[in-house]
Amino acid sequence: MDRLIELIDEKQNPSVVGLDPTEQVVPPQLMTAFTAEAQAELDSLAGSDVDPDAVAEATEVVATGNAAAYFEFNRAVIDAVADIVPAVKPQIAMYEALGPAGLDAYAMTCEYAQQRGLYVIGDIKRGDIGSTATAYAAHLTDDQWHEDAVTVNPYLGSDGIEPFLAAATDRDKDLFALVRTSNPSGSQVQELELAGGERVYEKIADLVEQWGAGSAGRYGYSRIGAVVGATHRDEGRALRARMPHTFFLVPGYGAQGGTAADVAGMFDRDGSGIVVNSSRGIIGAWTTSDHADELLGDDSSATVDDALDAVITSARLAAKAMRDDLRAVMP
Amino acid sequence: MDRLIELIDEKQNPSVVGLDPTEQVVPPQLMTAFTAEAQAELDSLAGSDVDPDAVAEATEVVATGNAAAYFEFNRAVIDAVADIVPAVKPQIAMYEALGPAGLDAYAMTCEYAQQRGLYVIGDIKRGDIGSTATAYAAHLTDDQWHEDAVTVNPYLGSDGIEPFLAAATDRDKDLFALVRTSNPSGSQVQELELAGGERVYEKIADLVEQWGAGSAGRYGYSRIGAVVGATHRDEGRALRARMPHTFFLVPGYGAQGGTAADVAGMFDRDGSGIVVNSSRGIIGAWTTSDHADELLGDDSSATVDDALDAVITSARLAAKAMRDDLRAVMP
Repeated sequence: MDRLIELIDEKQNPSVVGLDPTEQVVPPQLMTAFTAEAQAELDSLAGSDVDPDAVAEATEVVATGNAAAYFEFNRAVIDAVADIVPAVKPQIAMYEALGPAGLDAYAMTCEYAQQRGLYVIGDIKRGDIGSTATAYAAHLTDDQWHEDAVTVNPYLGSDGIEPFLAAATDRDKDLFALVRTSNPSGSQVQELELAGGERVYEKIADLVEQWGAGSAGRYGYSRIGAVVGATHRDEGRALRARMPHTFFLVPGYGAQGGTAADVAGMFDRDGSGIVVNSSRGIIGAWTTSDHADELLGDDSSATVDDALDAVITSARLAAKAMRDDLRAVMP
Repeated sequence: MDRLIELIDEKQNPSVVGLDPTEQVVPPQLMTAFTAEAQAELDSLAGSDVDPDAVAEATEVVATGNAAAYFEFNRAVIDAVADIVPAVKPQIAMYEALGPAGLDAYAMTCEYAQQRGLYVIGDIKRGDIGSTATAYAAHLTDDQWHEDAVTVNPYLGSDGIEPFLAAATDRDKDLFALVRTSNPSGSQVQELELAGGERVYEKIADLVEQWGAGSAGRYGYSRIGAVVGATHRDEGRALRARMPHTFFLVPGYGAQGGTAADVAGMFDRDGSGIVVNSSRGIIGAWTTSDHADELLGDDSSATVDDALDAVITSARLAAKAMRDDLRAVMP
């Protein structure tokens, strides 16, 4: 976790920007720039006597165009925040939703962020066993994914974690295991009460702390971090005490309702120990910005450059506001 | 689950072939046919004053070659078993391990299996929340992945399941949630005892049965199946009684140690209710076959066609043997 901790210290900013592009958050000027032609082709193929191969081909071209739009969008966001934040967290699901072409855009995004000096957390939440977990751990060892850390799911126990830890150790990288997720229904499983009186997520927390033992770096944190949602203020504070060698990746700030006050108790006494994610709050800031509204508003003549200008300006402001918001509660 | 159940009935075979290619299980003749040139290029680049872009490019060409070899291997296996088994289960991790190029081979494999009339279970074990789960559910709605069902992880509760169920309902597809995995360390989480005396996996089983209610098809099984490992004979039998509307996907037969006797108790009284997976036992059958040994043996002049012949012959025999093994214990 050392590289992440040092980047946070350097920027004095424990936040990470979630790169989760969707058709809602990428400006339409950008989406259509890459897909308008293919989409028109696809629309023209509607009807019953159409060659399915032609439809499949046009669908793939649209997906490739969407993937290109996602990458251009991400590049603008990365350029906008690279001097403000220490890390980005692309959510692979958003890219997978485009089909195989989306994964190219995911890997290109990770690579570009690394080139800009950012620590890249691949939010992949993979979890499987034995040789399959080893295959997934290629995210950390194969030079084509360009991730510095990945998120993993602990439901399969240590078999699903060890191959990632081995890969991380080999390549000076990290992983983050889900412990307490930010969503409401996470409680259906994670808050189940065990025979000993503790909750399932507390037992998972103990396992994560235990799995990480032996991999602690210069600052006392192991290579296995924990995902702990910002929406659980008291649990977060208790988990900090329970997991003294485990760094926290904290989703749920901003759009999901978590505040700086909610995460304040998860810092350690030195003001380290967590990195807080915001996705829509940064990359979608342009959708609620006056500047963007002026640039893009109802003006159908707005260009791709106008849209990127709006994205960049709004993302910078939002990233700085989040940084200052978190600095205000750092011990 | 109706389509799967009808295909099982038609073939009188409750088994599924796991398409999990690795460099160990794909014959070397096939691997080198696609990658020898690029690999030689990559090897020739070793040294300290090498252009990193040239290395990256050669690495990508090797990965693309490996992906092509995986697809050719899968196509041979699919052709070999298409008249014997109802379904295949490609494990996406094996393809992801090659980088983005691997995902193309995954999707092409799924598409080819569907074209051969097989039901395709994408073993993706995805699990996330809200809009992210919706993005992953594109595996079932986007026409580029070609899956009939996917596996999912239940640790995030119903938020992580509902988008998949909605997608499955919309497209007449299915999902399988992890309940009791076949690996040893699964017990670290799944066997934890709850305050009420039951185990975590039993509670998950109840949730899965409950989440599926309302989506039952013609045969009484819902669209949400459960993954239950063959390595837990007594638990499997008890789960069958506990989850009367939940179809089981059963890994762990064969190479992992599970036997037909182990899974016998998971059938319902009509001989339905489960589909049993074998991966290495089928696709890797050539590695222990006398026929393959004769064809490939120490003969360095063996061709790609020799290797495919060995794979096909051995996979057919192994798939029939597994079918007959399971038929013998069907009620």
